[in-house]
Order: sequence, then C-alpha cells, then structure tokens
Amino acid sequence: MSDNCIQDFYDDDLNRCYGCGQLNEHGLKIRSYWQGDETVCRFRPRPYHTAIAGYVYGGLIASLIDCHGTGTAAATAYRSERREPGSEPRPRFVTASLHVDFLKPTPIDALLELRGRVTAIEGRKTFVSISLCAGTVECARGEVVAYRISDDWGS
Amino acid sequence: MSDNCIQDFYDDDLNRCYGCGQLNEHGLKIRSYWQGDETVCRFRPRPYHTAIAGYVYGGLIASLIDCHGTGTAAATAYRSERREPGSEPRPRFVTASLHVDFLKPTPIDALLELRGRVTAIEGRKTFVSISLCAGTVECARGEVVAYRISDDWGS
Repeated sequence: MSDNCIQDFYDDDLNRCYGCGQLNEHGLKIRSYWQGDETVCRFRPRPYHTAIAGYVYGGLIASLIDCHGTGTAAATAYRSERREPGSEPRPRFVTASLHVDFLKPTPIDALLELRGRVTAIEGRKTFVSISLCAGTVECARGEVVAYRISDDWGS
Repeated sequence: MSDNCIQDFYDDDLNRCYGCGQLNEHGLKIRSYWQGDETVCRFRPRPYHTAIAGYVYGGLIASLIDCHGTGTAAATAYRSERREPGSEPRPRFVTASLHVDFLKPTPIDALLELRGRVTAIEGRKTFVSISLCAGTVECARGEVVAYRISDDWGS
C-alpha cells in the first residue's frame, strides 16, 4: 500500500471532518487505501468507544463506514477519470444515505478492517458497499450513497 | 419533561456507551425524554464535530439517531409493559440495523432536536423512526431496528 491515504489528497479546506479529516486534531483521522479493486481502512477503537462492556458502540462503526465510503467514492472518481490522486479538480463526496447492518458484537480490543467496493455510479452518486471485520469475523456491513459536491465548493 | 432521562434508568453496567452512557466520561451522554407519544433528544454539537466547515459530520448524526433509537425502544418497553421506568427488569436494546437519510447539511452551531416514534414491535425487535431538525429545518431522517438483549446480560 502507498504511504499516502485517499484522505491525504482532500483539499485542506475539506479535510477537517471529525471522521476522516487529517487536519481535525480531535477526530478519528481514518485512513483509506487502495488494495487491488477494494479499498481498505484499518482502525483500532479506543477503550472509551464502548457500547456494552467489551464491544464497540454502533455510532463508531457507522462513522467508519460513512467516511470510508466517501473516501472510496473519491478514490474511484480519480480512477474512473484516469487521473493521479491529488490532481485537480480534487473530488470530494458527502453522504446522502447510510445503512448499517450490525451482524455481530464488534470486540473493542480488535484491529478493525473495513473493505469497500463501488457497486454503481449514477451521475453525482457513487454507491459503496463496505464490510467490517474483526480478525476473520464479519461484524457489520454497510451501504453508503456518496454524493459528489461541486468542485468549487467553498471557494 | 421529567428531570430523569431514559438513559438514567439503564443499569450502571450497561450505561457506559460512548453515545448514550451517562457513565462514559468521554462520551456524548445523549439524553432522551418522553414528550407525549414521541421521544425527544436535544444535542449541541461541539465545534470539532465538523464535516465540511460549518456542518455536522454524518457519523455524529448517525450516533445520535442510533442511541436515541435504542433509548426510545427501552422507554417503550416500560410503557407497553405498564411499568415505571427503572423497575426491574430494566430493558436494554442494542442496534440491529441503522439507516440514515441525510436530507440537508446540518449546521454545526445549532441545537439539534431528534424526535423518535416507535412504528412496530416484533418479538425482541422494536422499529423506531427518528427525525433530526436544526430549528425548523429537518436535516436527517433515520430508522433504527433495536434488539432487546437478555435481561440478565452480563450478570
């Protein structure tokens, strides 16, 4: 995997999200990478990210799926336009909808691995399916509809 | 509204969730109340809960909907069993699935209000619909399927 994650190529002004912004000092700073045709994000929950003792709270899982989904959409936009990540304009997506099925309790002491795959692109919308595993156990599955904002947002 | 929120009646051992646990010192400590046939939760995002500048990140919205959903399910269990909140056994729910539609960008400087309503109960599952508003503007809508865990969980 490259040292640069997908989020490293977000514009600084759009890189302050609590979930994935590399410039949000309070945030989760998730990092997503290509691995073949999938995107991968690894995250170790902190002890206080608990639901019931020993397990991760659902809001963290939803946050990881959400931000890994928009990151996967951005990375895919570069690929589908045959451009290098970081070249202009830099695509940035927000979430139109999020669905999470919690399949099993997610252990809080595990390194979580999310794998994302784009299933469809329709205009500004990119549909991403994500699986979250703790070790070999799939604990959650998510669907993100990511919406591409205007390239000149905020400028 | 009563001074006690729904979450005040969770067992201490099950009251450490990052989203709604009143005993999680790092967490969001959301508080849900009955208001007629609806449940209400008000939450003021912190400045770092940002997505794109000025707006709330989706993971926080998902977290609020998730925990207000399980709280609404617990409160409804007491009502449907014609019991006082806090009487034994204390019902506690986890999330089986979560769906969020992000309708509009949610301003980060607003007091957010979530209103929940149970739409169905099927065995251990309670289905909750939630609307999230900033002022009079509905910014997100969610559906939570809450699953009632065993009354002797963890004991």
